[in-house]
Amino acid sequence: MRAVHLEAGVVTVREVPRPVCPKDFALLRLRCAGICNTDLELQRGYYGFAGTPGHEFVADVVESDDARLLGRRVTGEINLGCGTCEWCARGWERHCPTRTVLGIVRHPGAFQEFFTLPERNLHPVPDGMSDETAVFAEPVAAACEILDQVSMAAGADVAVLGDGKLGLLIAQVLHAHGCRVRLFGRHVAKLRLAAAGIETSLVDCGVPAAAFEWVVDATGSAEGLQAAVRMTRPRGTLILKSTVHGAVALDTAAVIVNEITLVGSRCGRFEAAMPLLEQGRIRVEETINGSFPLAEAAAAFQRAGTRGVLKVLLRPE
Amino acid sequence: MRAVHLEAGVVTVREVPRPVCPKDFALLRLRCAGICNTDLELQRGYYGFAGTPGHEFVADVVESDDARLLGRRVTGEINLGCGTCEWCARGWERHCPTRTVLGIVRHPGAFQEFFTLPERNLHPVPDGMSDETAVFAEPVAAACEILDQVSMAAGADVAVLGDGKLGLLIAQVLHAHGCRVRLFGRHVAKLRLAAAGIETSLVDCGVPAAAFEWVVDATGSAEGLQAAVRMTRPRGTLILKSTVHGAVALDTAAVIVNEITLVGSRCGRFEAAMPLLEQGRIRVEETINGSFPLAEAAAAFQRAGTRGVLKVLLRPE
Repeated sequence: MRAVHLEAGVVTVREVPRPVCPKDFALLRLRCAGICNTDLELQRGYYGFAGTPGHEFVADVVESDDARLLGRRVTGEINLGCGTCEWCARGWERHCPTRTVLGIVRHPGAFQEFFTLPERNLHPVPDGMSDETAVFAEPVAAACEILDQVSMAAGADVAVLGDGKLGLLIAQVLHAHGCRVRLFGRHVAKLRLAAAGIETSLVDCGVPAAAFEWVVDATGSAEGLQAAVRMTRPRGTLILKSTVHGAVALDTAAVIVNEITLVGSRCGRFEAAMPLLEQGRIRVEETINGSFPLAEAAAAFQRAGTRGVLKVLLRPE
Repeated sequence: MRAVHLEAGVVTVREVPRPVCPKDFALLRLRCAGICNTDLELQRGYYGFAGTPGHEFVADVVESDDARLLGRRVTGEINLGCGTCEWCARGWERHCPTRTVLGIVRHPGAFQEFFTLPERNLHPVPDGMSDETAVFAEPVAAACEILDQVSMAAGADVAVLGDGKLGLLIAQVLHAHGCRVRLFGRHVAKLRLAAAGIETSLVDCGVPAAAFEWVVDATGSAEGLQAAVRMTRPRGTLILKSTVHGAVALDTAAVIVNEITLVGSRCGRFEAAMPLLEQGRIRVEETINGSFPLAEAAAAFQRAGTRGVLKVLLRPE
């Protein structure tokens, strides 16, 4: 079968044997996968990654002992916990110290024709939902994670900084939650993709200082984080939603003097994301800027890394 | 009268007129003041400070329209809010956007024979409490601020990183609150000053990774903050209690992947601090490593900045 291989920044496509499916795992046949900024970071050397990336997917279950899953179209959670530690017992497999992570940490990812995941990680895709919508379940869940971490009341004013893929999803998830969202970005075309009801502003016109009790940084840049700190009111909360490769210069004096709370935020629950996608409350398909077969994965990565491009998909053929 | 003057890093002593006391202010005669790390930071250029520093003090009220204060020995809160804005209305004068701050921001400090503060900022010192204890009210209040910001249950395991003046106070305040405190530092002699019941460890022996749900960074160093991030468990909380001059390199990936919460923390309520000092639950006098008259302020600053030295006091004569 065909598998994407990423090593030392180079994307190749290889013929490899179909993976063996361990007990309590399902064998999945890829229908559609999304290239995420994390994949681009892996390409840049983050985690010293070598292997098959890919963690946003829709697939068919072709082998499983669970009759409710066999033959179903599914998406799935990406963290594989040990199942027995304190973290797994609390439902936080994503913090299990010995976890593997689909396409990121020691578990081959979704950018190949067949791959495996534990059956408990899988979520059936409702019949009426397209592959092109369902493939966003993982990043929408990551956006929803914010609401699992902090008590952001409906009606709260929230600034979202960054009009990339994740920023657009976060703005929409918080808007759907009832927040009054103001999305700050650098690209008129991207800001236009925000749902009706979300106010948008170009950062080139400056950002308001100490103006928001809630700020989400989804810029993926050190400058973005610094601007987000400046935008946060005293005693306010700034959610860190996008990683930056390497260390970031942070003005801790501003954080301390204004008693700002910073909250690191990563993967979230699919249970929160799927209804939002099913009810059409998050516009996702407009952000798809390309679709490539696995054989052209190198071109797909190049396109995904091009300035101004949002989501790029990979398909088996 | 005699006043310390700090400008461009140089400490001098000048003869200046006694300050005029505005309405609702009290005129205070210094009994005793403490040199804080912030004062040393001011000397290094933090805030571009020029003027009379000093914000930890005990003084006598020599002029006041408030009969309950006149003639009393007092200490006082250091933020002077406008009294009318949203922040002041919430009791958070320390976040008033137009505030001045005693000895730090546009209000002459306590390192002089006479100075002024609003009457509402003053707290009488109980008769049985020595000047050498009461002068710690401000930093103890800053330590208590942590418990106003986060819900740290009695019995919680807490790591405090940094065995300087503030770290020692924080460890004792959290211990008095009922936490199981482990204090990490670099100096055997300083660690020995921690109260009985506080476990102490030298950081030279390494710090445990991802081991604490609660961590307080009081190191004042970029390396300390990085170590504190490493010590914090996934979903744990790291309280930032000491500023570092300039930007600090922060590994945001670790904060985000482990979903760590960072909480900036500054000044606190004297109402929480005074009972702890009065009940003798915080050992402070053992940390005094020198006492100088105002006339020898330059020597006092030099001593306070010497490695291994904890609190240095200034007195009028």
